[in-house]
Amino acid sequence: MNSKNHVLIVGSVAFDTVETPSGKVERALGGAAVYSAVAASFFSPVRMVGVVGDDFPQEHLDFLASRKIDTRGIQVVKGGKTFHWAGSYKGDMNQANTLATELNVFESFSPKLPGDYASSEFVFLANIDPDLQLHVLDQVKSPKLTACDTMNLWISIKRDALVEVLKRVDIVFINDAEARQLTGEINLTRAAARIHEIGPKYVVLKKGEHGAILYCNESTCFAAAPYPLDAVVDPTGAGDSFAGGFMGYIASAGELNDASIRRAVVYGSTMASYNVQDFSLNRFKKLTIKEIDGRYEEFKRIVFFEAIEED
Amino acid sequence: MNSKNHVLIVGSVAFDTVETPSGKVERALGGAAVYSAVAASFFSPVRMVGVVGDDFPQEHLDFLASRKIDTRGIQVVKGGKTFHWAGSYKGDMNQANTLATELNVFESFSPKLPGDYASSEFVFLANIDPDLQLHVLDQVKSPKLTACDTMNLWISIKRDALVEVLKRVDIVFINDAEARQLTGEINLTRAAARIHEIGPKYVVLKKGEHGAILYCNESTCFAAAPYPLDAVVDPTGAGDSFAGGFMGYIASAGELNDASIRRAVVYGSTMASYNVQDFSLNRFKKLTIKEIDGRYEEFKRIVFFEAIEED
Repeated sequence: MNSKNHVLIVGSVAFDTVETPSGKVERALGGAAVYSAVAASFFSPVRMVGVVGDDFPQEHLDFLASRKIDTRGIQVVKGGKTFHWAGSYKGDMNQANTLATELNVFESFSPKLPGDYASSEFVFLANIDPDLQLHVLDQVKSPKLTACDTMNLWISIKRDALVEVLKRVDIVFINDAEARQLTGEINLTRAAARIHEIGPKYVVLKKGEHGAILYCNESTCFAAAPYPLDAVVDPTGAGDSFAGGFMGYIASAGELNDASIRRAVVYGSTMASYNVQDFSLNRFKKLTIKEIDGRYEEFKRIVFFEAIEED
Repeated sequence: MNSKNHVLIVGSVAFDTVETPSGKVERALGGAAVYSAVAASFFSPVRMVGVVGDDFPQEHLDFLASRKIDTRGIQVVKGGKTFHWAGSYKGDMNQANTLATELNVFESFSPKLPGDYASSEFVFLANIDPDLQLHVLDQVKSPKLTACDTMNLWISIKRDALVEVLKRVDIVFINDAEARQLTGEINLTRAAARIHEIGPKYVVLKKGEHGAILYCNESTCFAAAPYPLDAVVDPTGAGDSFAGGFMGYIASAGELNDASIRRAVVYGSTMASYNVQDFSLNRFKKLTIKEIDGRYEEFKRIVFFEAIEED
């Protein structure tokens, strides 16, 4: 990792209780900020902003530190309990069935950036209340690139704040159901066009097992194939891992252009595909750069059908 | 079209009554053999086998003839009524809601190949009763390549005959729901591996708006992106058009190898993407080779992210 650009990531830090056809984990390390920060850390230095209770084990902070992630922005609330999410997946595992959401310390969270965080060049607002995303945007100085994720809940209950976020970011990561919910358009190309009208120059549509599509200024500029896994152990955090890999790679590339953004989508797909091969962050804990590069090369071979002349 | 290889296609010739959010057509030209034959005809000469009643209008036969399709293999049953399918599509239009299926002349159909048909080099068994597919296979001499399509109905009620077909063909075109139904595997990579075990060397998984995946000998060798349409008028015949474009291109290429099969998938995707832009065969009626080549080039640009070194 030679990147000098920092990726600032704000989002949830969580305990996840997850059941899938492959098994179950209880109160395992999770949260959108954690998945995306760890994925990004393979490419660029990362600064995290979030909140936990004092029930959050030191071993998790140690793991993040081992990935060279700056965790000074993670507030520890004394006497507080860490956010807990419980869910299960069945069948094709494209949709989580939420069993419990205990916000705990998130109920009164207000993100505060340590002084040097404000100069971060690349900012990713992972899934979290859009009012908190706005509060982070207000604190960063002049980022090169900003991106956000969101979820169905905020589209339902905080649409105005979310629209405000979308007006201020360069990129939005969104899945197909969310894109349809946000715009009322069933056709995804039209849904992406409506989102462009709100603000973001780039719309990255995450389609889970079906890959990802990048829309640039109302037209599709890139479609990434899905990586063909013969077993998905746990889809939790796939979208966050995608966004983290994307942002980490873009930060390492230093700038966003037609070439770097396409590669960022493939690195995002690569990180998501590894993440779902085990529960929690377990696959990332043993993942190597060589494995990442190997799968990136596989993506090239999988989509190749005829050489294109580069301009 | 310089191809000298013939594509033999057997399957349904139908009247389709279809309603979608874009409108409705009644008793329009349709049927798996018609869609696939017309799609294939842009690449190679086609010979059709099927059955109609004497209610089948001459204008439809004239249209097929205008595409240089040999229709001597279409039996006309005097006093008989042509197969009629009625269905509707809603929402994301990935699934047809069948309203009526009137088999009519299909109930007593037995495909008979005109003498010169038997030497066809490329054979496509479009969706039809697998016993009839077997009957066609028994009549062809030594084809270079055989492929089949099928549907959920035959998986349910004629599994043994279908398995026999699968043992005898080189390629199967199948959608994700059918692959899962046939194998009992939810994971599509594993489902494809199970289908390989039955027989076909190549499994082409059609995923509708999500593109297509080609499995070669138990591993994914190619993934084709979906073409980003901002409006799907009528999905009827998309899978047939895909298979027809695929087979027509392969026949024109003359042989199946790693390069030609990947391009065949993209030409198949191209034909499917055009077909769904209008009802019945209407888009194909005005489609040009230049438009086909243009969209094929677009597919190249959409999936490109980094040059690959060709062996």
